[in-house]
Amino acid sequence: MIRLALTFIPVMALTAGLTACNEPAQSSGESVSQSTTINGFDRTFKAAEAKLEKLMVQPLTIPVPKDPGGGYTHETHKANGFLLYDVGQLYKLTGEKKYADFASQAMMDYAQVYPSWELHPAKKEQSPGRMFWQNLNESMFLLNVAQCYDAIKDTLSEAQREKIETDLLRNMADFLSVGAPETFNKVHNHGTWATAAVGLTGYAIGDDEYVEKALLGLDKSGKAGFLKQMDVLFSPDGYYNEGPYYHRFALKPFVIFAQAVEKNSPDLKIFEKRDGILKKAIYSLIQQNYGGLFFPINDAIKEKGIRTDELLNGVAIAYDLTGDTGLLSVAAEQDKFVLTPESRKLARDLAAGKATPFDYKSMRLGDGQSGTEGALDILRASKDPNGLAVVVKNTSQGLGHGHFDKMGLLVYDAGHEILRDYGAARFLNVEAKYGGHYLPENNKYAKQTVAHNALVVDETSHFNGDVRIGNQHAPELFDFIDKENIKLTSAEISTAYDDVRLGRSVAMINDAAFSGPIIIDLVEAHSENAHRYDLPFHYNGHLIHTNFEVQADPLTRAPLGDGNGYQYLWKLAEAEPLQGLSQVTWLLDRKFYSVTSAVPAGTKVVFTQIGANDPNFNLKPEPGFMLRTKTNDGVSFVSVIEPHGDYNPTVEYTIGSYSQVKAVSHFEGGAAEYIRIETKDGNVIGLGLGAEDNPSGTHNVEVDGETISWTGAYKVFHSIAHTKEKN
Amino acid sequence: MIRLALTFIPVMALTAGLTACNEPAQSSGESVSQSTTINGFDRTFKAAEAKLEKLMVQPLTIPVPKDPGGGYTHETHKANGFLLYDVGQLYKLTGEKKYADFASQAMMDYAQVYPSWELHPAKKEQSPGRMFWQNLNESMFLLNVAQCYDAIKDTLSEAQREKIETDLLRNMADFLSVGAPETFNKVHNHGTWATAAVGLTGYAIGDDEYVEKALLGLDKSGKAGFLKQMDVLFSPDGYYNEGPYYHRFALKPFVIFAQAVEKNSPDLKIFEKRDGILKKAIYSLIQQNYGGLFFPINDAIKEKGIRTDELLNGVAIAYDLTGDTGLLSVAAEQDKFVLTPESRKLARDLAAGKATPFDYKSMRLGDGQSGTEGALDILRASKDPNGLAVVVKNTSQGLGHGHFDKMGLLVYDAGHEILRDYGAARFLNVEAKYGGHYLPENNKYAKQTVAHNALVVDETSHFNGDVRIGNQHAPELFDFIDKENIKLTSAEISTAYDDVRLGRSVAMINDAAFSGPIIIDLVEAHSENAHRYDLPFHYNGHLIHTNFEVQADPLTRAPLGDGNGYQYLWKLAEAEPLQGLSQVTWLLDRKFYSVTSAVPAGTKVVFTQIGANDPNFNLKPEPGFMLRTKTNDGVSFVSVIEPHGDYNPTVEYTIGSYSQVKAVSHFEGGAAEYIRIETKDGNVIGLGLGAEDNPSGTHNVEVDGETISWTGAYKVFHSIAHTKEKN
Repeated sequence: MIRLALTFIPVMALTAGLTACNEPAQSSGESVSQSTTINGFDRTFKAAEAKLEKLMVQPLTIPVPKDPGGGYTHETHKANGFLLYDVGQLYKLTGEKKYADFASQAMMDYAQVYPSWELHPAKKEQSPGRMFWQNLNESMFLLNVAQCYDAIKDTLSEAQREKIETDLLRNMADFLSVGAPETFNKVHNHGTWATAAVGLTGYAIGDDEYVEKALLGLDKSGKAGFLKQMDVLFSPDGYYNEGPYYHRFALKPFVIFAQAVEKNSPDLKIFEKRDGILKKAIYSLIQQNYGGLFFPINDAIKEKGIRTDELLNGVAIAYDLTGDTGLLSVAAEQDKFVLTPESRKLARDLAAGKATPFDYKSMRLGDGQSGTEGALDILRASKDPNGLAVVVKNTSQGLGHGHFDKMGLLVYDAGHEILRDYGAARFLNVEAKYGGHYLPENNKYAKQTVAHNALVVDETSHFNGDVRIGNQHAPELFDFIDKENIKLTSAEISTAYDDVRLGRSVAMINDAAFSGPIIIDLVEAHSENAHRYDLPFHYNGHLIHTNFEVQADPLTRAPLGDGNGYQYLWKLAEAEPLQGLSQVTWLLDRKFYSVTSAVPAGTKVVFTQIGANDPNFNLKPEPGFMLRTKTNDGVSFVSVIEPHGDYNPTVEYTIGSYSQVKAVSHFEGGAAEYIRIETKDGNVIGLGLGAEDNPSGTHNVEVDGETISWTGAYKVFHSIAHTKEKN
Repeated sequence: MIRLALTFIPVMALTAGLTACNEPAQSSGESVSQSTTINGFDRTFKAAEAKLEKLMVQPLTIPVPKDPGGGYTHETHKANGFLLYDVGQLYKLTGEKKYADFASQAMMDYAQVYPSWELHPAKKEQSPGRMFWQNLNESMFLLNVAQCYDAIKDTLSEAQREKIETDLLRNMADFLSVGAPETFNKVHNHGTWATAAVGLTGYAIGDDEYVEKALLGLDKSGKAGFLKQMDVLFSPDGYYNEGPYYHRFALKPFVIFAQAVEKNSPDLKIFEKRDGILKKAIYSLIQQNYGGLFFPINDAIKEKGIRTDELLNGVAIAYDLTGDTGLLSVAAEQDKFVLTPESRKLARDLAAGKATPFDYKSMRLGDGQSGTEGALDILRASKDPNGLAVVVKNTSQGLGHGHFDKMGLLVYDAGHEILRDYGAARFLNVEAKYGGHYLPENNKYAKQTVAHNALVVDETSHFNGDVRIGNQHAPELFDFIDKENIKLTSAEISTAYDDVRLGRSVAMINDAAFSGPIIIDLVEAHSENAHRYDLPFHYNGHLIHTNFEVQADPLTRAPLGDGNGYQYLWKLAEAEPLQGLSQVTWLLDRKFYSVTSAVPAGTKVVFTQIGANDPNFNLKPEPGFMLRTKTNDGVSFVSVIEPHGDYNPTVEYTIGSYSQVKAVSHFEGGAAEYIRIETKDGNVIGLGLGAEDNPSGTHNVEVDGETISWTGAYKVFHSIAHTKEKN
């Protein structure tokens, strides 16, 4: 016999499938002709119909609250909420009475028992619920059920309405508002879930009191509530302080409730408020994806991306508001739809061939309520979502989920991560892995600086790994350039270490000497004391070539260090670059990638693999290498990061497997800098970076006895231009 | 300035792109609407037009032969051959004279110089060419150019024909036939390239002499030549002895020339010969793919699959011959087309929605000329190309490219490798990696038994790793069953080790106690002497759970052994299963996989990672575990391999992360065997396997004091049936 505890699982799984229904068609023969004839929404709709058909054969099971998150009663109520949302939407879309009848019966059943439920027996201390262990889940449930009620209320008798409104909707809404002021009035995403749920309830039952409290806080002063949350939780550019993984979670109540506000209180012009902040929040979240997955900065499950329910709703609503046909391309990438009229419209327009490329672009997303606490800098070579892209994490700490990687670098190309972030050390909801929670290795490895492509001083993490200190400091930002042939970002921070000022300038340039755009990465540390510096490159792929002799130890391995994340890295090999030039090439899928670095004398290159001190197999065995040196007066590492070549196992040819870079040099003239790249074909490309304190001035740098001059914050010296410059 | 050596590269890359032109559309916005309106062939055709437009601005460069494979003159002539093929095809498809003019000029240019070329200066000893270092490449060139000539010859003047036929086509064909009898008359794929090229030349210039020699050998006796090659190189089931990677390479001249024979000499009914062996060869190659990639048995580049040029032609020709609309689904998976009328028809019918699911199925592909030298056994849960599939390598050795993995196991599910083969240790054409050749680790690791999911005795490989001995022996095959609820294969070999007889029976069964089909894997060794046994499972994914305590050494690693491939495995951990039951669970993408094994007392489970003794970073760091024991009288390991659960990071739920298997037991009654599986829900499933010497008899096995009986080679005891059986 099947255990009882299993019975809720199909419901949950199916319902999860309903709200965001269609996985991409497997490449089975069956789908070949279908995919060209049925649009995505219709697929979702038909699947939802078929599944509800099965689930509606008996009334909802409504167990007495008992279990914490993940347990039977928790998951059953959660699934019921999603199910009722779907039933309500199907009624709206079809007008078929069976849906309304099922929903009204279910809500009547809930109304029968909800008033009798005291605080949940497994209540969380800070914010307990009644149906669930925390009231966050209660808000999510009400968000769904209020929408269901709104959809079917016209089918109810007066008595049914009275019962459901009084004993379920008002009872819940009161509990979540006046009954939990510390959450409801909090300017935090949990507060947004509460205000959105209560506000939706107000619209559904026609009680403005709930709506006003939702928008303006319990005292209607505007010091709390949804509008205040809109003002505070996103930066002016629509960046969410904790990064895209949590942005995504916070987004849903914003867009769902705002849409209801737009319909019911159009005079408020909610989507225009704060210069259209909610649209910006949707767009900026889309911009923060590559290959469909969010940039995995800070604590992030790396598999999470644009196909989540939150952004399915977000894209559909934004398209409804803007008519931006670029969003149809995002919808095509999502290839999933939700049961709303907006999503239906999206799918129809997509199927009608109206899509245009989404405007993926280079951008600086300011962080902090005023946009002044650092920024997430994104450089993209083109609009191509699978083209070369760079993320430089010049943001603030991002609170408790933040990682210690000031000016950390991510590189993407050809649809893949090239230089990557480990993301969070967590197997979400996998009980055998530490109950599915963040693993101990999340704090001890994944958050540490060495787990990132960011400079580490003396084997300690930024801010000594103290989040309270980290929260007080953001990098100082310099120019952000987005021109046809150069994208550039530059920032510094002097607070990550006591006596070391860190700086990073990252440029993406196009020059005919290369087969495509390349990245120039200048990492500097300014200090007057002796320190050890490690610059890790967590590369994705298989090591192919180095320009120096390197031999991995064949017979043994040992951890690289004993703290701050170093204890989790196996040291595979240590080698010495020749004449100050380190070149490392790896292969990923069909392309080669080389990092060619000008390094100080005495620099070693250390090759690593994650997995030391990991008795429980919690970590992924990813490779890396780091530039390591020790100096008395700071350091600079200048690297060219270069995609090249074509490894084609289908047609069986390989071209361009070697880097085109022959030499990289770095020259300074006062605070100005000049980086020179020589290619094997004899081209010379230069990048001048002006002194930050004199961005519009003229800069002179002595380069091998010649003076290179330019005016302004930067200048690219292309091969021919360079010759001219010198004449 | 650009080095000369680089100039051929774009041509080659472009041309490679022409013959098999369309990579799958990137998910950029541009492709969204296109993909539904332009069929695949049209995309290929337009791309070819555009590229030829660029390439035809100047005459072909025809350098004097000098360089070996990979060098400038080699790659230039190779690219020229492909280019001329494309030009000829475009002329056939468009009738535009510019193509014919370009081709005739190019062939005239070649005719001008070819007669003066002696043997290639970098000639390979056994089979030198004149244009290329080996005549295999010369055959490939002629195969392309003969087709080009055939396409455009009607546009030529008499003088042009005379010149090209005499000085290029006949000159080459003579050189490749009477000039190289040892290759031409060889029953080997190099011989097929030669006979096909010469035969196509015969048809193109209208000289039957060449055709007859091609078909029947130089003496026209039929003891050699194309027809003989058809008789010998494939097994009666269309299996190619070296496996699908080399099958793919051998296939092209067969199908291209056979198609010409069919058109020019229809009476021969070439495609019906030997019970339609060429169609079988195409179909069996398709059947030997999963997720679009060929089963990587023996030396194989794992990225190679159905999208190769050879099989693009093969599928188009087979569709033309058979009208099997299942092939349209294969074409959809390929998503690439070639410049032939057959490929155009394929694309049009695919776009017209005529595709039906391809008939992927369980099958035994007999090996050897008579089909009696073992077999490749494929078990598929359904027609779904992404469903659960198993490959058991019961084939013969496969000559010099064969690996030592008798009865090795591969498991696929959900589009992925689950239990995998390392494939070849090689980075194809990547010069920095051992010149792009097979790495030394190919022989020393990848070919060894321990690199496979196959039983190893005393840490030595099958046949002691001696290919000459391996070539003499194939497994003895028992029943192959393909029923709705059970697929089963069984085989033995007594020659892989001196005094140990190895056996493996693998069943795929469906039972309601599990969420989907499972695999039962019985591995046995019969011996009367003391031996050590290792059964490796090279799993793909992240280790999630074991039912026993296991701790990886946090601070050091050491190689597992010192020879026969063991020296390349790091030993991560060793653990002891409890009460004879080992259960190991891993996560891959969105599903969990468990191997639950009944093991003898004293068995250890050893966890490994590839990469010891690998100073040059040549090996991929893949994980594995092995069941290891030492006995005086043989061994049996019975495992249940079980896909389960759903890890869904998009919707954020995880279900079914634990195996459903509670216990696995193995009982013997004489030579009959009974495997019992108990699930955590209390279900009991049994599998009876009859004695091989009495397949139709009645078998009795004592199981915990009860007698289980059945008649026939096998019986599945489902939970309810089992209860009935016992009553």
